[in-house]
Amino acid sequence: MIRRLHAQAATPDRQVVLGIGDDTAILKTSSTEWTLITTDLLTEGVHFDLATSSCEDIGYRAAIANLSDIAAMGGTPRFMLVSIAIPPTCSTTQIHQLYRGMMQASAPYRVCLVGGDTSASTHGLFLNITLTGVVRPGRALLRSGARVGDRLYVTGTLGDSRAGLDLLSSRRRRTLPAGQARFLLARHHRPSARIAEGRWLVTHRLAGAAIDLSDGLTGDLRHICEESDVGAEILGDSLPISAACRAYASAYGLRPQEIALQGGEDYELLFTVPAGRQARFERLAKTTRFHFSCIGTITPKQSGLRLRTERGTTSPLPLTSYEHFRRPS
Amino acid sequence: MIRRLHAQAATPDRQVVLGIGDDTAILKTSSTEWTLITTDLLTEGVHFDLATSSCEDIGYRAAIANLSDIAAMGGTPRFMLVSIAIPPTCSTTQIHQLYRGMMQASAPYRVCLVGGDTSASTHGLFLNITLTGVVRPGRALLRSGARVGDRLYVTGTLGDSRAGLDLLSSRRRRTLPAGQARFLLARHHRPSARIAEGRWLVTHRLAGAAIDLSDGLTGDLRHICEESDVGAEILGDSLPISAACRAYASAYGLRPQEIALQGGEDYELLFTVPAGRQARFERLAKTTRFHFSCIGTITPKQSGLRLRTERGTTSPLPLTSYEHFRRPS
Repeated sequence: MIRRLHAQAATPDRQVVLGIGDDTAILKTSSTEWTLITTDLLTEGVHFDLATSSCEDIGYRAAIANLSDIAAMGGTPRFMLVSIAIPPTCSTTQIHQLYRGMMQASAPYRVCLVGGDTSASTHGLFLNITLTGVVRPGRALLRSGARVGDRLYVTGTLGDSRAGLDLLSSRRRRTLPAGQARFLLARHHRPSARIAEGRWLVTHRLAGAAIDLSDGLTGDLRHICEESDVGAEILGDSLPISAACRAYASAYGLRPQEIALQGGEDYELLFTVPAGRQARFERLAKTTRFHFSCIGTITPKQSGLRLRTERGTTSPLPLTSYEHFRRPS
Repeated sequence: MIRRLHAQAATPDRQVVLGIGDDTAILKTSSTEWTLITTDLLTEGVHFDLATSSCEDIGYRAAIANLSDIAAMGGTPRFMLVSIAIPPTCSTTQIHQLYRGMMQASAPYRVCLVGGDTSASTHGLFLNITLTGVVRPGRALLRSGARVGDRLYVTGTLGDSRAGLDLLSSRRRRTLPAGQARFLLARHHRPSARIAEGRWLVTHRLAGAAIDLSDGLTGDLRHICEESDVGAEILGDSLPISAACRAYASAYGLRPQEIALQGGEDYELLFTVPAGRQARFERLAKTTRFHFSCIGTITPKQSGLRLRTERGTTSPLPLTSYEHFRRPS
């Protein structure tokens, strides 16, 4: 409904390269640089729980969610505006921590806080971040850039944040070695925004399409396929899963692949590399410190979204999307 | 506290002309145009009451609050992003109305909706708007531009919105002629953003400092005086007050001047005209359809903020600031 409302409301404008519908809007603001702009709203009880997360972690994750949107376009983040609605239950210390977390996450990118608004809230903490970025004209990575035959890649490992979230809401953390539990919790509380990876893909013109994984691989792959009018086949055994996430799955009797497919808020990048650029991509990737995994292929739209197993059989990808706070079943 | 936090968090950046502390931030984004950016958060039960305002009016006012910030800088609004947190009590129709109101307010300025975010809210409706604008390099009107001897001007009339708000929360509306009550309610629900006036002041280089009246004349004049390091003297009898506001004051046994001084959310512009430009200002103003009133003078800081009455006596301006929903005493 919101998407429809936005579509109705969007006035055509010659400066708007891309409005609603991708990770950020793209605006032709000058001949040498295009502007990216994105906004994210986090609400207590929906996106975070003050009982299980510190305000510093909440601020950190909120900033990463926005930085990750800029990363998915291959952009460089620039300016931030922060609005917070503060409930009577929130202390000054907590607000300090919230800002500290946001600043910690964005400091490595020299993002500049230039504005914001503060309000009282009758119930619950609300945090809205608006972030701008820049990208070279015509170079932004779009969801709509995938073509049949492209290879699908992801950065990092998948499912850690979801496993971390589940550890937070469960009381059985002790069944995991402490180091692994700490790793998963850290990946939930302090995810990374893949800014450097996104910029690298843009600089070398290696990627076709890109998105950041906030809804989970299945959900976000669906966005790429819808916007690009294609299908996709995921190689189940190629999904990058950390040892800690595997240990967690084993301890809880879950399938690691399912956590990797459905776990949200990893903030890794999912991107496509056209077949003709794959060799160069693989060669150049070896010269970096980045971690990329090839996890599948873009297929014709009619094939839909499918998962290929070890034994070579394929099945439709389950139509699930990440819900915050939901426990793995 | 927030201001201190922001000051601590603001990294110096050569593109930032002005960060936190004025109506909008100013960014040197190109050699021909500077970018303005502002964000406003409205929360149910603090900034609006769904019992007395329609969602269309709430959306309208929210957009005006942001447009008015751009107006106060003398800028032209360009792009908007809208975040909403929707409580379970809110219907689809209400969300439609909210958008319709925002679009109605911003359509005259050809503002383009380019992004946003939507979330569930456990309690209450939250609406955050981010708005960008442009202004010619070096021409933005700042709060800090007032000098001793400047004349103080406002657009439109003062106190109408406050009177309208009070009518909403009282049940004695019938003591006012229906036309006047309607006028005051409309001024509360559907205020104007003085975009054209702001741009005109910038084009003709007529103003020293400017701010939009959201906190009320007393509160916002204080912002100009603090940022410019000056005092001010207001001529009580020169305050522009509508016939409807006078009728309202009389019906309720209130002093119209006090409503004009303390009433918030008028979204009129308060600006200074340097003494040397006053004659030109007055001459050019006559060629426009704009409504300006000279309401006082900028004085040395030591004099503070003073109010001059009809009889020529002066007294300190009471240190009150507008509170949403507060009834006139």
